[in-house]
Parts: sequence; structure tokens; C-alpha cells
Amino acid sequence: MTRFEPNLRIPGPTALPPSVREAGGRQMVNHRGEEFKALLLRVSEGMKPFFGTQHDVIMLTCAGTGALEAAIVNTLSPGDAVLAVPIGAFGDRFAKIAEVYGAEVTRLDVEWGQAAVPAAVRAAAAEIPGLKAVLLTHNETSTGVTNDIPALAAAVRDAAPDALILVDAISALGAVPFAMDAWGLDLVVTGSQKAWMSAPGMAMAAVGPRAWAAGETATMPRFYLDLKRHRDTAAAGETPWTPAVAVMYQVDEGLRLMQAEGEGVFARHAAAQAMTRAGLRALGFELLAADDVASKTVTAAWIPDGLDWKAFNGSLKRQGLVLAGGQGKLKGKIFRLGHLGSVTTDDILAAIGALEVAALEQGLDVQPGAAVAAAQRALIEATTRVAVPA
Amino acid sequence: MTRFEPNLRIPGPTALPPSVREAGGRQMVNHRGEEFKALLLRVSEGMKPFFGTQHDVIMLTCAGTGALEAAIVNTLSPGDAVLAVPIGAFGDRFAKIAEVYGAEVTRLDVEWGQAAVPAAVRAAAAEIPGLKAVLLTHNETSTGVTNDIPALAAAVRDAAPDALILVDAISALGAVPFAMDAWGLDLVVTGSQKAWMSAPGMAMAAVGPRAWAAGETATMPRFYLDLKRHRDTAAAGETPWTPAVAVMYQVDEGLRLMQAEGEGVFARHAAAQAMTRAGLRALGFELLAADDVASKTVTAAWIPDGLDWKAFNGSLKRQGLVLAGGQGKLKGKIFRLGHLGSVTTDDILAAIGALEVAALEQGLDVQPGAAVAAAQRALIEATTRVAVPA
Repeated sequence: MTRFEPNLRIPGPTALPPSVREAGGRQMVNHRGEEFKALLLRVSEGMKPFFGTQHDVIMLTCAGTGALEAAIVNTLSPGDAVLAVPIGAFGDRFAKIAEVYGAEVTRLDVEWGQAAVPAAVRAAAAEIPGLKAVLLTHNETSTGVTNDIPALAAAVRDAAPDALILVDAISALGAVPFAMDAWGLDLVVTGSQKAWMSAPGMAMAAVGPRAWAAGETATMPRFYLDLKRHRDTAAAGETPWTPAVAVMYQVDEGLRLMQAEGEGVFARHAAAQAMTRAGLRALGFELLAADDVASKTVTAAWIPDGLDWKAFNGSLKRQGLVLAGGQGKLKGKIFRLGHLGSVTTDDILAAIGALEVAALEQGLDVQPGAAVAAAQRALIEATTRVAVPA
Repeated sequence: MTRFEPNLRIPGPTALPPSVREAGGRQMVNHRGEEFKALLLRVSEGMKPFFGTQHDVIMLTCAGTGALEAAIVNTLSPGDAVLAVPIGAFGDRFAKIAEVYGAEVTRLDVEWGQAAVPAAVRAAAAEIPGLKAVLLTHNETSTGVTNDIPALAAAVRDAAPDALILVDAISALGAVPFAMDAWGLDLVVTGSQKAWMSAPGMAMAAVGPRAWAAGETATMPRFYLDLKRHRDTAAAGETPWTPAVAVMYQVDEGLRLMQAEGEGVFARHAAAQAMTRAGLRALGFELLAADDVASKTVTAAWIPDGLDWKAFNGSLKRQGLVLAGGQGKLKGKIFRLGHLGSVTTDDILAAIGALEVAALEQGLDVQPGAAVAAAQRALIEATTRVAVPA
């Protein structure tokens, strides 16, 4: 039952398209030379439409977590009042980073699997004197829930006009429309191994004027993740420290593919999500996120009582399907299927088909072919049929 | 005069051997799965003989500068007395990081181009009450000077037995013999893009028991670069945040090549250094570092008065030879030729030949062929002749 390349359906790292793989194997260049200068400029400019920003996009050599840390330490001082709105494990991490660096963090905890409610955020923000920043998650990778960022941002602005809005958009930016400037966001981060179809190792931070201004007085210590140092050297086409050159080659190629596909990128992710949800439901799985807050990039489902997950997942692995488990308090309780980056509709048909085989092997009460048929119907209902990008 | 792949003679990123390039183009895997677990274990174990340590080697997703920051923030508290011994731009950076995080840093500045003197380090360390750590540079990339680390470490131990010894070994580790445990070093860092023949994006930190113990009480804030979190997850074959998987594939392959070459790695670097110095001297260049402290991985030479460097370097570029300029206060005054990682003796012959052509073009008083002949003699004098690794 060998599959020569697994169906890597985790929410990042995402599978690399052939031309991105080729880019990752390119020879090094001088990172203080003209070729790199052009590359850095092209990638940071190419990112801007996906962020929906005219402001600076800074390229960092780190994981997404490093970019979350950069968002905190470049804008805040110890003792600053911060409102965190964790809706899952990554929102929790964002809050923890602020705590570690000495912010006074108030948590508006939301049940995992739910989205944040704008009215609750407005009320919480209004109650915190001198609120300096609000930490929001765009797409919570651990639960497959997407927040309504424009509504949440409007609520924050309403209650606390001077508070910075810092957004973790790591796992959906690029896969869904996003409008940082129009929504009034101050700092937004993402990572190379998500929608950008590249290996992990680079994170990108879009920084607006209010965040830069806050940085002028922010006293949290920073050096490696200092955004201003990155901005200053970017003006000369360089990074302050040696960048992950090969990952940047890949992001450059990933962006080229995305630019060629245009709006089709968003339609493809929407179709993959609809197919995944229809297929999993037809198999009898209960999904963690309600339809109106469901992520376009990752879907989480409860592991039913009585299902031997290890045996079930063993069958999936033998068929070449790689899923992710739960994180934090959801460990052992859910599984997650990633449908972002290079995902195509046939990847999802194959994944649902493999899940169906595993369900039959484990004696679950399913009709052979029904789940794949449900995914097929969802694909046909999706307005756009999407082919593999050229 | 096209050259289809430049002779990339900068001190990192170093040119990637073909099999390392191939590794960089591999498909992603689940970074929470069995394949990655085996990879992480193999790479961190494979690093140990090059560090000369039995202790933990931690894999970080960052540039070398991030690892320098990790060395500081994981072992120290604000207000701690630190002795920095900068001998160039990177030693200066190491000191600055400690300052940014609130250490009380005493600098024992050494003239750029010189090595640190053990007796001076001993005297400086003895004068600082409650000295917590000494920051040393193994190989100063900006000047091409290698410190006598065992002698400096012994001097520190003599004057301040409880002080931690933190070592930036980024740009020579792997290219020269090193013995962290025997020399009594507490924390040593390196980076993927140097001797390891890989793309930038990962840094490695070897952490001894005294450094771990210091970490228990160290209060400098840290999250992304928290070494203990990395150690704890490494026990389960994972990294705490998504790692630079493709760079780790490359380091794995680079290590395989180095293990196959064995002691030849060190001989090859020694030969490349001797050839470079002989060739540059035959061209009339004055070298920054004296022979007894000269780096085995990078050679810096003064730009002579009257030489039009831009025209000279333009000739080198047209011939495909890429050199590095000076950094910090040496900017515009020196050039640097890197001979580390995948460097072979024919790379150096080609580089010296190209320099000779440029010198002739610029009307310098050189004898055609004399510099290449000097490099050839240096190669023949080197005890081992080294072939391209299989």
C-alpha cells in the first residue's frame, strides 16, 4: 500500500509544489549582494496584497512563534496593559509570550472551538484602563476556527481607540482575503510553511505606522527579533542577520504561483474546506467548529467515543494519509485535517476516500463511497472548480 | 566571461554541494512524526563529535545571531556582571546583546585583527566581583582571527572559577578540531550556513551542565529562544515550534559528507587557508591577521592605498568570484575571502587566479602566474592533498 509521496494533510508544514521544491535546492548567493537585494524586495512587495497593506512587510528568519514574539516585544513595555483573546492553543501562546515579557495580561478566554464575540471583546477592552494592545488570532490552528477580524477590530477601536491590534494570521493569510489596512490592524504575522507552500523557517510581519510609533517607546528587550533593525537594513536590500536564503527562494516561487492563480487561490481553499466538512460529516464525525466560524485552512473533528484512534490512524498512515492530532487540552480528543497551501481538490477526495477505507476497516457504520460522494457534491456546489496551478 | 555557478568565496552562506542542494529540495514531512524524530536525533547526535561534547546539542530555527542571544538570555539575569572580549564586529554584537538584556558588561576590547591575550583576560576577569559569564569568540568572521579558546578558557577558570564561558563558534566549528568539554566551555553555538555546507536558517547550541544550572535562576525573558523548552521537547523527538525542516535535511546531509571525509575536513580547510594566504601575499596584499592567529575559514586582507576597489572587484565579479567586504569600522578598508564548508583546493586556485587577472587588469605590479604558483606550492607543502568528498 506504498504511496510514493504522502498526502500530507497537516496544517503546516504544507506539501511543496514541484517548482517550490526546485527552488529549495538552489545554490546560495551572497546575502549582501544584488541578487539577494532583488529577491528581498520582490518577496516583501509580493506579500503586501495578501496582507492587504501598503505598509512594511518584514522578513524574519524564525518560526511563526518568533514572529508572535516580535509583535509583542517591538511594541510593548513591561507593565503595559494587554487584552488577550485566546480561542485555542496558539492564542494561549500569544498571551504567554506577553506575560513572559512582563505585560499585564487580561485574558478573555473563549471556549476552544468557538470564535471570539465582538461585543464581549468591546466590553473587556472598555474595562481595562490604559489598554495598550489587544492580541487577536485570525485563524486558530488548534481548533479550526476563524475569527471575524474586521468585526473584532472595530469593537476594539470603539472601546479603546488607542490600543494596538496585533494579529496572529499565521495559518490562513494568503488562503483567504485579508485587509490589514482597511480593518485598522497594526501588526499582522504569518509564516512560510502555511499558505505560502514553502518550507518552515521564515515568518513575515506587516507593521503599520501606529506599531512603528509604539516601538519608539517600547522597552521590552529585543535584538534578534528587532523589527526596526530589519526595516533599516531592508532599505538597503539586506537583512540584519543572515536570512534563511533557501526558504526565501521558496516563498518567492510560492508567491509566483499564487499570483498566477489569482482569486483562484481563495476559491480553491473554500472548495477544499467544503469538501472536507461534507466528507467528514458523511463519515459520522462531529466537527469542532460551527459552519459560520469554520476555518478555510484546517478542520478539526472530535474522535468519537469507542473509536480506537491508534488503529484508525494506523490505517490512514498505511494509505499515505498524514493527519494532525489535538494540541493542549484537546490532545487525544480531536484530529485535524489541513487543507491549505498547495492543497488541491483531488488531495481532499483522496483523503476522504482513505478515511472511508479506515472507517470500513474499523467497522464503523458507513456506506462505502458515501463520504467521497458527499465531498464530490460539495466540490460541484462550490462555484469554482480549481485545477492544479500551472 | 559567464561562469555558470559563481565561486562563492564569502564566509557564509557557503556553497552547497550537489547532494546538499538535493536535500534542500525534498518534500516536507510531519514535524511531529517519526521521520522527523529520527532526523532531529541523528543531526543533534551527529553534531556532538564536532563540538567535542557529550552534552545536549539544541537545534534552533534562527540565524547565528539568534543563537548568541539564546546563549545570553538562557543563562543570565539583568544586572549580572559579564566580561565581553570583542575582537571584531561579531564579538561586539555578542556584547551588545548582553547589554540590551540588561547585563552589566565590562568590555576588554582587543584591536581588530588581533587575538585576545589569555593573561589580559585573566586579569580582567579577576577584577570583576561576582563575574557571572565571559563572552568569547572562537573565530571572528569580520577579521579572520581565531582565538586560542582553550588558553582563554583556562585563564577564565583560573581567575573566576564560577563564571560561565559562552562561546561564539559560529564560523569555524566543524572546520577545525574543537573540544568543548575538555576545554571546560559551558555553551557553544554555531550556524548551518558555515562549515555544515547548508543554507542558513538553523543554529545549534551545545549546552553543558553549568549552563543548564544557571538557566534555573536566570531571569532574562525568553520564549522563542528558550533552550529548556527545546531540550524538553527534544526528548520526545520534537522542537517546541515548527523547525526549518529543509535546512535540517541539508545539515543532515552535510554531516554525512563530513563524517565520510573524517579528519580530511580539517586538512582541507588548513590547505585552503595556506593557499589563500600564500596567493594573496604573492599578489602584494597585506593580511589583517598574523600567521599564528589566522583563521582556517576566512582570510581578510587590507585594500591597498590607491587601489580602485570598485573596479578591481568588478573584474572579480565578471570572472565569477564573489568576495565579502569589511564590516563595522573595517568597511571599505578590507576584503575577505571565505574558505570554509564545501571549499576545495581547486576553488582556491581559481580564486587566486581570478585575483591575479584582476590585479593585472588594474595595472598592479604582479608577475603573471606567480600568485597561483604560490598557492600551488602551499598546497603541495600541506601534508594532505584533499579531493572533493564523494
